[in-house]
Amino acid sequence: MPIHDFTSQRLYLDTPLSPGATVACTPEQANYLRNVLRMGDGDALLVFNGRDGEWKAALAQRGKRNLDLEIGEQMRPQEGGPDIDYLFAPLKRSRLDYMVQKATEMGVARLHPVITRHTQAERVNTERMRANAIEAAEQCGILRIPEVAEPMKLERVLEGWDASRRLIFCDEAAEVKSPVEALRALLPPHSRGEVGEGGTAEQQSSGFPPPLTPPRKGEGNCDSPLAVLIGPEGGFAREEREMLIAKPYALRLSLGPRIMRADTAAVAVLALVNSVLGDWH
Amino acid sequence: MPIHDFTSQRLYLDTPLSPGATVACTPEQANYLRNVLRMGDGDALLVFNGRDGEWKAALAQRGKRNLDLEIGEQMRPQEGGPDIDYLFAPLKRSRLDYMVQKATEMGVARLHPVITRHTQAERVNTERMRANAIEAAEQCGILRIPEVAEPMKLERVLEGWDASRRLIFCDEAAEVKSPVEALRALLPPHSRGEVGEGGTAEQQSSGFPPPLTPPRKGEGNCDSPLAVLIGPEGGFAREEREMLIAKPYALRLSLGPRIMRADTAAVAVLALVNSVLGDWH
Repeated sequence: MPIHDFTSQRLYLDTPLSPGATVACTPEQANYLRNVLRMGDGDALLVFNGRDGEWKAALAQRGKRNLDLEIGEQMRPQEGGPDIDYLFAPLKRSRLDYMVQKATEMGVARLHPVITRHTQAERVNTERMRANAIEAAEQCGILRIPEVAEPMKLERVLEGWDASRRLIFCDEAAEVKSPVEALRALLPPHSRGEVGEGGTAEQQSSGFPPPLTPPRKGEGNCDSPLAVLIGPEGGFAREEREMLIAKPYALRLSLGPRIMRADTAAVAVLALVNSVLGDWH
Repeated sequence: MPIHDFTSQRLYLDTPLSPGATVACTPEQANYLRNVLRMGDGDALLVFNGRDGEWKAALAQRGKRNLDLEIGEQMRPQEGGPDIDYLFAPLKRSRLDYMVQKATEMGVARLHPVITRHTQAERVNTERMRANAIEAAEQCGILRIPEVAEPMKLERVLEGWDASRRLIFCDEAAEVKSPVEALRALLPPHSRGEVGEGGTAEQQSSGFPPPLTPPRKGEGNCDSPLAVLIGPEGGFAREEREMLIAKPYALRLSLGPRIMRADTAAVAVLALVNSVLGDWH
């Protein structure tokens, strides 16, 4: 029987992975591999668990009804990524799915639903969020699955905030200014080059909190912990905006003169943060 | 009868708009206004046509079956936006809808489907693209509707290219380097500040084509024409990549170490281009 190569297919397994290990498939996984992908005995695909990197795994029929995966060689070591918490006011069903997939593609470390005054969806299915994060990771070859936090009210999130984690919040009501310059101003002067427009003097002169650790050469990642917050589609309430602006660890960011939907703003700000402070170097 | 304010609702009308004008609704529009929004005689909403700005308009019943809109005061003048052509390998149905909506929110001037070697969807419904652009503009209050071009093969697009329009193409196979620095290097030295990492020396020394006109103070827009190209999900074919790299007007851009889906990459690169060269200042 010919052995087929399915190594453009990736499957998430919630189990430790090591060379020579055997993993029993769940009935859903067995159905997917045999009936959707039409894989046969000996065919190989890629598997990962979010911790141990990416591995080649071959199907092995066990008896009539059971299917094993035999773990072969490691194809890629585990990858890290920027330490970005992604906080967001949850959206309704399909748009929340989409937003979770997009944030995963953008490499965030944690997904944290935050309930604000104008939030549309109060109930959040965190299991579904996790399934969407896994699906995006499988499709895009991302090896780190973002953690999913339980929904929490904005006030409570800020009460327990670790001030060493900068909070970048996007605000449609903010004056339109270069978001790149605003993000660069979080870095120490020697690593950001000359700051152009002069619009960031206040951030430069404010002594607290200290500038971020600059991205390391080669690795590119800014070591410092970051968080990005996207508010609800109705925008932040006035009290929420004032509460956020008052926090010394918070940076209020404009995303240009046009209104964007929340899932669009998510990708836009994460692209900017990854480019200036994250691992797009 | 009470008059209700529906001015958070926007409706696109394909007709000239001026104060005091009367516009007859199509049956679809009349159905939407009366039965979906539940608007009554005298209620007002916002209308726009992509050319004449945004106007207040009041419903006026005419006979039993016809509905007019009476155009009142102008609420916002027509807005421009960056001169960005957005070129993309078309995706399948719902993901193409989504991509068109996202590009509209990001303020592109033109949507141009480009057929590449690995393009998934050969047939493109440009009417549907236009409807999605209008829907996004209605929802987000965008006053300029992007033009929709007919699909064209990549080779033909490049044959007819105006070399004064820089073509920024995203390539997963490009070395990971700061996209912000790469885009800043398109600007003349005095308007970009000190370029940090030194990774852009080749672009700085290459004399052709000349640097872009810098964004104007206040307005913020880079006057120079730009284009952004997102390839198919399978990536560019080798010959296509070589053809693009050889063009003096082309800039090959990396969007970081992770693979993204094409609609995600679209928002990411347009956020970066708007921030460095467009109107996010």
